[in-house]
Amino acid sequence: MFRRLLTLDQAERLLQERLNPKPLGVERIPLLHASERVLAEDVKAKINIPPFDRSTVDGYAVRAEDTFGAEENNPAELRMCGTVLIGELPKVRVGKKQAAEIVTGAPIPEGADAVVMVEHTEKEAGLVRVFSGVGKNANVLKAGADIREGEKVLKSGKLLGSREIGVLAALGVAEARVYKVPRVAVLSTGPEVTEPGKALLPGKIYDINAYSLSTAVLECGGEPLYLGVFPDDLEELREALKKAFTCADIVVTSGGVSIGPKDVMPEALGSLGKPGVILSGIAIKPGKPTTVGMIGEKPAFLLPGHPTSALLVFHLLARPIIRLMAGRKREIDSTVKSIATARMFSAKGRRTFVMVALKRDKSGKTFAEPVSVGESGAITTLAKATGFIVVPENVQFIDSGQEVTVHILGKRLFD
Amino acid sequence: MFRRLLTLDQAERLLQERLNPKPLGVERIPLLHASERVLAEDVKAKINIPPFDRSTVDGYAVRAEDTFGAEENNPAELRMCGTVLIGELPKVRVGKKQAAEIVTGAPIPEGADAVVMVEHTEKEAGLVRVFSGVGKNANVLKAGADIREGEKVLKSGKLLGSREIGVLAALGVAEARVYKVPRVAVLSTGPEVTEPGKALLPGKIYDINAYSLSTAVLECGGEPLYLGVFPDDLEELREALKKAFTCADIVVTSGGVSIGPKDVMPEALGSLGKPGVILSGIAIKPGKPTTVGMIGEKPAFLLPGHPTSALLVFHLLARPIIRLMAGRKREIDSTVKSIATARMFSAKGRRTFVMVALKRDKSGKTFAEPVSVGESGAITTLAKATGFIVVPENVQFIDSGQEVTVHILGKRLFD
Repeated sequence: MFRRLLTLDQAERLLQERLNPKPLGVERIPLLHASERVLAEDVKAKINIPPFDRSTVDGYAVRAEDTFGAEENNPAELRMCGTVLIGELPKVRVGKKQAAEIVTGAPIPEGADAVVMVEHTEKEAGLVRVFSGVGKNANVLKAGADIREGEKVLKSGKLLGSREIGVLAALGVAEARVYKVPRVAVLSTGPEVTEPGKALLPGKIYDINAYSLSTAVLECGGEPLYLGVFPDDLEELREALKKAFTCADIVVTSGGVSIGPKDVMPEALGSLGKPGVILSGIAIKPGKPTTVGMIGEKPAFLLPGHPTSALLVFHLLARPIIRLMAGRKREIDSTVKSIATARMFSAKGRRTFVMVALKRDKSGKTFAEPVSVGESGAITTLAKATGFIVVPENVQFIDSGQEVTVHILGKRLFD
Repeated sequence: MFRRLLTLDQAERLLQERLNPKPLGVERIPLLHASERVLAEDVKAKINIPPFDRSTVDGYAVRAEDTFGAEENNPAELRMCGTVLIGELPKVRVGKKQAAEIVTGAPIPEGADAVVMVEHTEKEAGLVRVFSGVGKNANVLKAGADIREGEKVLKSGKLLGSREIGVLAALGVAEARVYKVPRVAVLSTGPEVTEPGKALLPGKIYDINAYSLSTAVLECGGEPLYLGVFPDDLEELREALKKAFTCADIVVTSGGVSIGPKDVMPEALGSLGKPGVILSGIAIKPGKPTTVGMIGEKPAFLLPGHPTSALLVFHLLARPIIRLMAGRKREIDSTVKSIATARMFSAKGRRTFVMVALKRDKSGKTFAEPVSVGESGAITTLAKATGFIVVPENVQFIDSGQEVTVHILGKRLFD
């Protein structure tokens, strides 16, 4: 049975069109819990910042005109009329030829229009001598000078970090309106697959993918729901998938797919509803048997069982969709320029992804060392490969010594 | 009162020596919760991976010598002796001139030492014709070929991401031994400071720092404990700090410090125990009044009240200490090369940090645009500044058009 596989570009376009990924809804959460969440509204300032005219120095609030011409040999003499405390409404009014003691951050009292720095004054028995004249608004931060009431301060779609959360706090926002986190059900299949922590019976191996993929879901802004391991049994998989679609917005499975027609995973999915499988097989290496389906509006990514392939295809196809459903930007990969340490061939007619370990030498040069993705070193590859190099469909090989772009898998460059 | 301030390098060395930051202890947690945690032990494989000799193809398990010389026109004829299922101990033994059906991943049955791919065979009435001879171990992945029992697979100190968690799962590890997360108490001071969500009374402003710093704590691997806002009152601050030291491993405050001798925050700290203040004032701009103290073994960072200064000094001094206490590497900053869009001056004799916004033009060139850290735009700066440029003590200015290194504050480069 020969069938022309979709290229990766075609597959990406198909998923974009059919899945039409967008945020799942909005919720209000306490600002202190909003780190790494995505703002779901434009935030406009409901107050001026600062909310009132503030002194920017310690000194005396005065009428500027009373200090005009004052200098070292010709001080202006003003009468102390009181003290302005920080954090409360001034109880004093500054009249003509008067001065009120004030500290940094305190509100400018009525009547005053400038502040003289304490360094330019001398206090003596109810009198303040000003040795340096000030202009109107000197050492005064006007209300709204930083942010004006009504000003748009943060845009919808902003990923919230320490700076943004500080800005929201400044505006008095105690709860942030953010996009809901997509729930992603993760399950593994295979009669030989055993959950870690259980005894390993003869002929069995431990599950890897439900763990690595759950963590990858976290890393792109989703909430993983670990459903466990299921045998390659149509009825059991049907039940597992049904449960997955009930509790999650997206389903990610691994194993039980290949290019054959009778694979149990696509069959189980197809039996659950429409439209079922929308993509089966992609011209990439590794990852060719990757299958994507939908039940109603919810996507399911049926990834290959090989651990590195599963993680790579998740990165290429599922991650951008989850990010968009989380309200994040699609994101271009983090990449690093480095030098290939070996020749890397493309698989005929398929876009080829070569897993590489990044090494840095003493001079700071970065090298990309291929690590095999064969059956023989599945876990070793996973432990070593920081990222991947793309060998395009129309290129025979990338040569040793050539500069290459390494796409980072996961979050970190070096150890 | 003139006093020579420590340089930043001296301050960093002092903190390293006095605080001697190291992990706080070890705990076991479920592997699915171990994302972003730091491994606290070398992990050695307790099993071979794969745990048994496995077939890497679908086909027939055979004795290789029975197929020697087999070719298209001269097939070897073997007798079917049974089927090996995946995930269980083979119930069949392959004798001389026999073959057992086998699928990818299933254990090699006793007697067999190679697998012939199904594509090179023909099955007929209890007989299997092999059209292509195989050598010993052909299509067999030997037990331990990927990872050998006893092999060191992950090193202590490794930050756990999707790949590492997959590797641990493969080894059957259901609980990871990781370093404890340092608890960091965060509080703000100032009689004018109000918690977001509360009504803003006249003369008050909303708190920023406890929010931005709590988030910054999360971003470097700590657990923030938000304690709230306290007035500049010695007794109240003493109580707040006492509570902070009881519930946390590290204390971070902002406000209530300057270079004067009578600041309330250092006084409150000093009154709590020994050694008290160990560092007061650093020759940097901004951030000069930064104070660091210790009560017993626990550090307290007393940061300036200005939001951007507080976050910057946290990044420079507190973050590396928290990272080390979390078992992480000290980490060199994430940096980006870019082009200065304006001349940036150093403050005389102080290492100067110029906050900048990164902009990228269509050609992909990156520009660093200074944003002021003055009183006049505290929040605007926080909203805009992606990172900072360092103007060294001995340099007068960095010129517009010059290539500069931008250090990223927080986690992200662009929006």
